[in-house]
Amino acid sequence: MKISFIGLGIMGKPMAFNLLKEQSLDVVYNRTSSKTAEFQEAGVDVARSPKEAAEKSDVILTMLADSSDVEEVILGTNGVIEGVKRGSIVIDMSSINPEVSKKIGLPLQEKEVSLLDAPVSGGEKGAIEGTLAIMVGGDEKVLNSVRPILNIVGSSIARVGDLGAGGYAKLANQIMVALHLEAMSEAFLLAKKADLDFNKLYKAIRGGLAGSHVLEQKIDNLIEEDFNPGFKIDLHLKDLNNALKVAESQGIDLPFTKNIQKSMEEMAEQGYGDLDHSSLYKYLTE
Amino acid sequence: MKISFIGLGIMGKPMAFNLLKEQSLDVVYNRTSSKTAEFQEAGVDVARSPKEAAEKSDVILTMLADSSDVEEVILGTNGVIEGVKRGSIVIDMSSINPEVSKKIGLPLQEKEVSLLDAPVSGGEKGAIEGTLAIMVGGDEKVLNSVRPILNIVGSSIARVGDLGAGGYAKLANQIMVALHLEAMSEAFLLAKKADLDFNKLYKAIRGGLAGSHVLEQKIDNLIEEDFNPGFKIDLHLKDLNNALKVAESQGIDLPFTKNIQKSMEEMAEQGYGDLDHSSLYKYLTE
Repeated sequence: MKISFIGLGIMGKPMAFNLLKEQSLDVVYNRTSSKTAEFQEAGVDVARSPKEAAEKSDVILTMLADSSDVEEVILGTNGVIEGVKRGSIVIDMSSINPEVSKKIGLPLQEKEVSLLDAPVSGGEKGAIEGTLAIMVGGDEKVLNSVRPILNIVGSSIARVGDLGAGGYAKLANQIMVALHLEAMSEAFLLAKKADLDFNKLYKAIRGGLAGSHVLEQKIDNLIEEDFNPGFKIDLHLKDLNNALKVAESQGIDLPFTKNIQKSMEEMAEQGYGDLDHSSLYKYLTE
Repeated sequence: MKISFIGLGIMGKPMAFNLLKEQSLDVVYNRTSSKTAEFQEAGVDVARSPKEAAEKSDVILTMLADSSDVEEVILGTNGVIEGVKRGSIVIDMSSINPEVSKKIGLPLQEKEVSLLDAPVSGGEKGAIEGTLAIMVGGDEKVLNSVRPILNIVGSSIARVGDLGAGGYAKLANQIMVALHLEAMSEAFLLAKKADLDFNKLYKAIRGGLAGSHVLEQKIDNLIEEDFNPGFKIDLHLKDLNNALKVAESQGIDLPFTKNIQKSMEEMAEQGYGDLDHSSLYKYLTE
């Protein structure tokens, strides 16, 4: 079973390296070819197009920025669809609009190619350490056949449903994280004005119903007012945009999600885009 | 050291019972006298006023509904202040506006009486089991002298600062809990529309950055659509009202807190007041 990896960005590159270390990488493709040099030196075949990567492999992993990139790489000119062999499996690990995942799945299915949507959480750190949490949508048997590959890049694999379900789970996840960050920001701003010691407050509330992983992982950012990423506002904004697209197409109103999207959009306009998403606190207090 | 307890409501009654069981209760007072019968039968002195309760004790615990009740019981006619002895300690465990706690502290201080504000989290269950988390504001030595008493009603005691700090911590806590509930509600509504299995989604995201105690403790309410309290919307609304009063007096804007207060206010008007606060999900979906 030959494996190709398309998209060697901040997340994709360390994921591909982890596959390489386990002798589970045969072909790479990246739009900016300079990023493929290290892989070439290590003996990995560098494809000149997604089409060529697909021709040369049975499992094609993609890790790209957003829906349009995935659509282009898979369905566009010289895309995966032009080279992919019957029976192959495409695993898209990008965080995109799950409605696009479903759409992309159809022409692949006509070629008897399976698509899994498998977005991750855990950030660059998780990608480097191979500890990503992977949320998968798609056929269970197909997933089971590629579990050994996914186990190299992640430490937990949860199948949440059919194609698109991985993406929906990721969006639900990102809605919660965004609002947890806002919750913490407003609570700690009130505490700051009341001259409370953040560390004491943190210890007083972390064990109770207010406890959260956001509180545990981001309290130091607030205490030290250090908002280096971590996970960038620009990326979180992209996820919230996708969540609102889904909400709109399903005819539901997510009022607080809409508001936090608006906050992050304003932050991006005001130069917060490259800061960690915990900079919601900085934005609120400035 | 004689101990009195004022306010035998849903929270106060089981707390007073726990003190009684440990031979740490001498006097009770409650506005509705019928609630004192069980204590009288057990040999506890029933005072006819907060004044009398204060006269007969060295430590006075209060557990009342809101700021105005505490003000009335402590500073009003026949209030604690009229009977309290120099050197006594008043511990107000109610969840009130911490600015009121500070105000009440001054006339007590003139009488050389110490006030601690010590609101709790953990709800009726925690009160019954003696496992409340207690957030304390006030003098550290004073707190240390009453720790054995507080250890009977709670399982964790965190001093967060001077008088009022307990209340500020409680408000910060309640802001976070309210917004975590909304976060979960919007995320799971999106998931519902996408036909995701709630249990699978829960398992896929609980270990990541979206994980929270709200998610752990309220997921079953969403799955079973059972919104029996728990912690009532009416009570949470009271806390948010206090949080917004504090924010206003400190000149800060807490936009999401304001919105969730508005949601709960509308819910209370529409008959959700006695439901668990996780009914934010029900409100969002109906």
